[in-house]
Amino acid sequence: MSARHGFDWDCILASKKRVRACVIGATGYTGIELVGLLSSHQNVELVFATSETYAGQSLSDVAAGAPEIPLIASETASYRDVDIAFLCLPHAAAAPTAVHALESGCRVIDLSADFRLRDPYQYACWYGVEHPAPNRLAEAVYGLTEDVRRRLPETNLVANPGCYATSVLLALRPLLQTDIRIAGPVVVDAKSGVSGAGRAPKVGSLFAEVAENFSPYNIGRKHRHLPEMEQQMASWRSPAPRLIFSPHLLPVKRGILSTLYVPLEQAPPMDELHSRFRESYEGEPFVRVLPLGKLPSLAHVVGSNRCVIGLEQADSTLIVVSALDNLLKGAAGQAVQNMNAMYGWPETTGLPA
Amino acid sequence: MSARHGFDWDCILASKKRVRACVIGATGYTGIELVGLLSSHQNVELVFATSETYAGQSLSDVAAGAPEIPLIASETASYRDVDIAFLCLPHAAAAPTAVHALESGCRVIDLSADFRLRDPYQYACWYGVEHPAPNRLAEAVYGLTEDVRRRLPETNLVANPGCYATSVLLALRPLLQTDIRIAGPVVVDAKSGVSGAGRAPKVGSLFAEVAENFSPYNIGRKHRHLPEMEQQMASWRSPAPRLIFSPHLLPVKRGILSTLYVPLEQAPPMDELHSRFRESYEGEPFVRVLPLGKLPSLAHVVGSNRCVIGLEQADSTLIVVSALDNLLKGAAGQAVQNMNAMYGWPETTGLPA
Amino acid sequence: MSARHGFDWDCILASKKRVRACVIGATGYTGIELVGLLSSHQNVELVFATSETYAGQSLSDVAAGAPEIPLIASETASYRDVDIAFLCLPHAAAAPTAVHALESGCRVIDLSADFRLRDPYQYACWYGVEHPAPNRLAEAVYGLTEDVRRRLPETNLVANPGCYATSVLLALRPLLQTDIRIAGPVVVDAKSGVSGAGRAPKVGSLFAEVAENFSPYNIGRKHRHLPEMEQQMASWRSPAPRLIFSPHLLPVKRGILSTLYVPLEQAPPMDELHSRFRESYEGEPFVRVLPLGKLPSLAHVVGSNRCVIGLEQADSTLIVVSALDNLLKGAAGQAVQNMNAMYGWPETTGLPA
Amino acid sequence: MSARHGFDWDCILASKKRVRACVIGATGYTGIELVGLLSSHQNVELVFATSETYAGQSLSDVAAGAPEIPLIASETASYRDVDIAFLCLPHAAAAPTAVHALESGCRVIDLSADFRLRDPYQYACWYGVEHPAPNRLAEAVYGLTEDVRRRLPETNLVANPGCYATSVLLALRPLLQTDIRIAGPVVVDAKSGVSGAGRAPKVGSLFAEVAENFSPYNIGRKHRHLPEMEQQMASWRSPAPRLIFSPHLLPVKRGILSTLYVPLEQAPPMDELHSRFRESYEGEPFVRVLPLGKLPSLAHVVGSNRCVIGLEQADSTLIVVSALDNLLKGAAGQAVQNMNAMYGWPETTGLPA
Repeated sequence: MSARHGFDWDCILASKKRVRACVIGATGYTGIELVGLLSSHQNVELVFATSETYAGQSLSDVAAGAPEIPLIASETASYRDVDIAFLCLPHAAAAPTAVHALESGCRVIDLSADFRLRDPYQYACWYGVEHPAPNRLAEAVYGLTEDVRRRLPETNLVANPGCYATSVLLALRPLLQTDIRIAGPVVVDAKSGVSGAGRAPKVGSLFAEVAENFSPYNIGRKHRHLPEMEQQMASWRSPAPRLIFSPHLLPVKRGILSTLYVPLEQAPPMDELHSRFRESYEGEPFVRVLPLGKLPSLAHVVGSNRCVIGLEQADSTLIVVSALDNLLKGAAGQAVQNMNAMYGWPETTGLPA
Repeated sequence: MSARHGFDWDCILASKKRVRACVIGATGYTGIELVGLLSSHQNVELVFATSETYAGQSLSDVAAGAPEIPLIASETASYRDVDIAFLCLPHAAAAPTAVHALESGCRVIDLSADFRLRDPYQYACWYGVEHPAPNRLAEAVYGLTEDVRRRLPETNLVANPGCYATSVLLALRPLLQTDIRIAGPVVVDAKSGVSGAGRAPKVGSLFAEVAENFSPYNIGRKHRHLPEMEQQMASWRSPAPRLIFSPHLLPVKRGILSTLYVPLEQAPPMDELHSRFRESYEGEPFVRVLPLGKLPSLAHVVGSNRCVIGLEQADSTLIVVSALDNLLKGAAGQAVQNMNAMYGWPETTGLPA
Repeated sequence: MSARHGFDWDCILASKKRVRACVIGATGYTGIELVGLLSSHQNVELVFATSETYAGQSLSDVAAGAPEIPLIASETASYRDVDIAFLCLPHAAAAPTAVHALESGCRVIDLSADFRLRDPYQYACWYGVEHPAPNRLAEAVYGLTEDVRRRLPETNLVANPGCYATSVLLALRPLLQTDIRIAGPVVVDAKSGVSGAGRAPKVGSLFAEVAENFSPYNIGRKHRHLPEMEQQMASWRSPAPRLIFSPHLLPVKRGILSTLYVPLEQAPPMDELHSRFRESYEGEPFVRVLPLGKLPSLAHVVGSNRCVIGLEQADSTLIVVSALDNLLKGAAGQAVQNMNAMYGWPETTGLPA
Repeated sequence: MSARHGFDWDCILASKKRVRACVIGATGYTGIELVGLLSSHQNVELVFATSETYAGQSLSDVAAGAPEIPLIASETASYRDVDIAFLCLPHAAAAPTAVHALESGCRVIDLSADFRLRDPYQYACWYGVEHPAPNRLAEAVYGLTEDVRRRLPETNLVANPGCYATSVLLALRPLLQTDIRIAGPVVVDAKSGVSGAGRAPKVGSLFAEVAENFSPYNIGRKHRHLPEMEQQMASWRSPAPRLIFSPHLLPVKRGILSTLYVPLEQAPPMDELHSRFRESYEGEPFVRVLPLGKLPSLAHVVGSNRCVIGLEQADSTLIVVSALDNLLKGAAGQAVQNMNAMYGWPETTGLPA
């Protein structure tokens, strides 16, 4: 972690102008992670964290090992006391809260899906409810940090990307931003740990159901992360290839590994493809392209904010394997990375390498 | 399983005298296990299974890999159509159902705690509710099969022992039924898989909470299985030693392993103690005492109806390790074993060795 | 298991014509599973089991919960004392043993790869060693039971299919045996439990490496099960589509789930495709095609000899999900099913449904 | 982490006089953890790390997610280039290396058992080999940091305590350092994650053996951590109570939870006992005593250098539950804490709270 070493003026100066932050919905897995990151972030003062269910308790009582942060009810949250609000709320609940916070002069990073799709009609189709704040969609920035960092300093509303979406988009970006021709739909076979299903208790997330099990769900073209992926892909190339996206539930706590099958026309040699990926992410602190012959696993990424990518070829199909920690680079970590970019701090501040 | 295939006289003869059974509350872990055992039991016809939540569906839709048994609402259950009812209901709900079934001429094996304690006052203390049918307590038999099998043929109401209780009582019985002097309280450090916490969704049973974790709970003298253990111990020796009973939650789906520390006065040599355990369980189909030098693990018992016991000594303390599958010998398996004994069939019928 | 208890004519009659079997290499995961199945199979007498490492011990000492079967050194194995030998040996070691057993008048089911590929040159390419018995290849039958059962009664040498291969081939067979046109390579994204890597200790199979992890390996066209899959596919349709086959290591003990992406030309409606799968496996005791809208998981198959298949569609791509227990239908279970067919017994004899 | 926040002169000054460290035996679980801690420690320059098996590779190739540190063979290690050497070697191999390093003017923290027992005869009894450097035993300090920190600045040879021993000793210290009378042997029922068994491949540590399993081993008075615990206890009270120590293998990667049963004479009220524990560890950065009514779990400690302690009572027996991460406070973390104390840095430097 860069800020820990050497003579660190950055650190010293920053301590004088700490940004005041809050976490709305702190007792889900993303919220807990975010509180952990923010409470040890050198430039941030975590002013409050909210919970409907556990207001009045300490987060450490609700989640073993979490920081001792008091939880307040969201009604008592005053957005005038903070500079930035992180929203870890269910979709449709996040948007009204975001509007309220924005109107109180607060910047917002929304970790729900509410501001990811630009088209409110598409939102209604996928989420089964009318968009609560369609007139705010235009100002939202889809926060795939590597793609959008230059816009972040002027942004007040960031739609933090979905966990699956981040893993897939970082894998496709080097291909779609070049002239490599893609011959058909891209198959994405994705696998996620159980924390991705949230902390609300349901039978399908019980230990005795998940351990020693592995299950596909919403495969094909049914998962809600599909439209945000295709929307972002279209910003890179039009028309972009269609996705076939098949998520599976892994018996692990955290981590996503996506295996992408990209049919290429006139595939360039592998070392050339590999070079393009390397160049595309040169200097990126949190995206690592492995040498040819090596593939990522969850062990490469769990506990870090990194996305690690490996390449393989089969006939004219390029296989891209992309791994990240769904709670870090896939959610809370990328949110902090976005905040760092919004305030002009080094993006790595407060994030595990 | 052999009896299902080919020209099977055994099966044919049995079908003439098949006992008609039902499972009340079939969609918890114990209920699912019981339906599995009963639906392949050669002497049993499983007439119906009930579920409040999932009535109208098939059990196989509710639990992947379970038999395709239709689930009916409990209101539509007719106890006149069955010979025996297995109750997998929460405590306090089981007793009234048991009374209703008994009055319909049905035998009952109750897997809840409702008929385990003979003293309704003690029941009220531990379960926080008045006993729903105190006048039925006298006729209930505490179904630790190895101890009580001779009474089972004439019994119509069996209180199936708790999972922890079975593991502890089988470990202590050879000691308490002899003249070996015990010098103080017996420490029982017990560890159970998560299915013991039931299938009702709660945060503490989620995969992301339990995996890579291990937690003590209700340690000391606070767990509800304590009074049924001490009651049964008192039937073997009076006064019996006090128990200190500390359960812990293991990150496994099923299995209980209890480590008991028994302080002895004038400890006999280990081989003599070992012989007493061996003799005590000689001929038992489902209790196995390992040779000295070997200890049981969950792998010895998961998937079988066995309780496996090993012995070790430290100074004058005898250590007894006792392992069983909480859903089999600790619940559904022992229930079937009890039914077998009630009808005079070989106790092993329909049970995995 | 019912046939073991009581007055069992079935058992008694069977014992007169019991087939004498042995397991060569009984202490790997497949061998342990096979000993378990054979020692409770009503038509089989398990005469001996071998182990190089553990000769002289009981299998129950080597694997907790396994049957108490004495292990002998393979040098002392007499193939004249048995009717059928199951070989659970590494490739290249199995073939010479098979020849020896065949020459002693014994039938052989080989669970290694040695007799799966018809072309010894291809064997040498993939396994890095010259085939030890190329002149025996012609008589070997590739034992995908559902495909080849009519040839099994006259067969003395069965090459039991690989675990991945079984899961993939059962998923593709209904498509390849009809006139449905396939538009390009078939992507197979496969995931296997760790027992598939064998019981020989290596760092990559340690609990602390595998738990909370998930890793791709040998993806693309590099895994040794690829040629046996394409060989079998070519027997159904020529030319068959190419495979892209990407295995991944799952943090579970057992089970394989393969997700296949089949690009179709002029895709028929899903219900028609579904009907073809249903018809193709009608009456099969161990292949189950789920209703449309349902998908298999490992929980559907672990502990059973079943392969469970589900279908989904995305644009013109058919997605087939196929799950089985790698140690049962993927190895020991299919071996017993093959033996049952070789002797004309019901295929389900001695196998968990 | 304290050093990250505020105006940190300590950090600034330290960067000028970095201590040069090496890790001998870097590819076991303790070594990997230690390299991770040292390579991000602000006051340390990790000069080299050794491995017999993997010399020439990078640690990141050997362990996914580990830092990219080149591994050298131990023969090429020059102890003159470093100020402090951390030894992660098997017992009996560590002592000669320690002597060599000490003679080169290097301080040594030995994570093996070689310098833990003061009596070379006892070492020979428990480790089955003569002590390789008995004349160095007198200068070694048993590095239970909380107990011995004042001696560390002048120490050149630290024997880092065993993982089990740390969890047990921190649980007993507040009792043994006061006048509370203990009535008999203390039962310690301990449970450890698999990383405690090391990274050398063996069948018993394979995922398919450990997952869904739980096993006692070396219970009673047979485990090698017993003598170092009783030796340290005797330094606090003489005679100290005997221990009965029963370790069990948990299906988790890391973490130890020990449940101690301490029989008390004339037990003081629980709140008084609790106060003594609180006072005993007041101000300790890495020992936390939970409020009465709360118990630690592995989730409280995995990933942190903390030991978390909870208390419960049953009759006159005090139950102490003590949890820590076996690779951090139980090994590499405590080693770094010891180094921090040796150099007079804040003990928390570079350690996860």
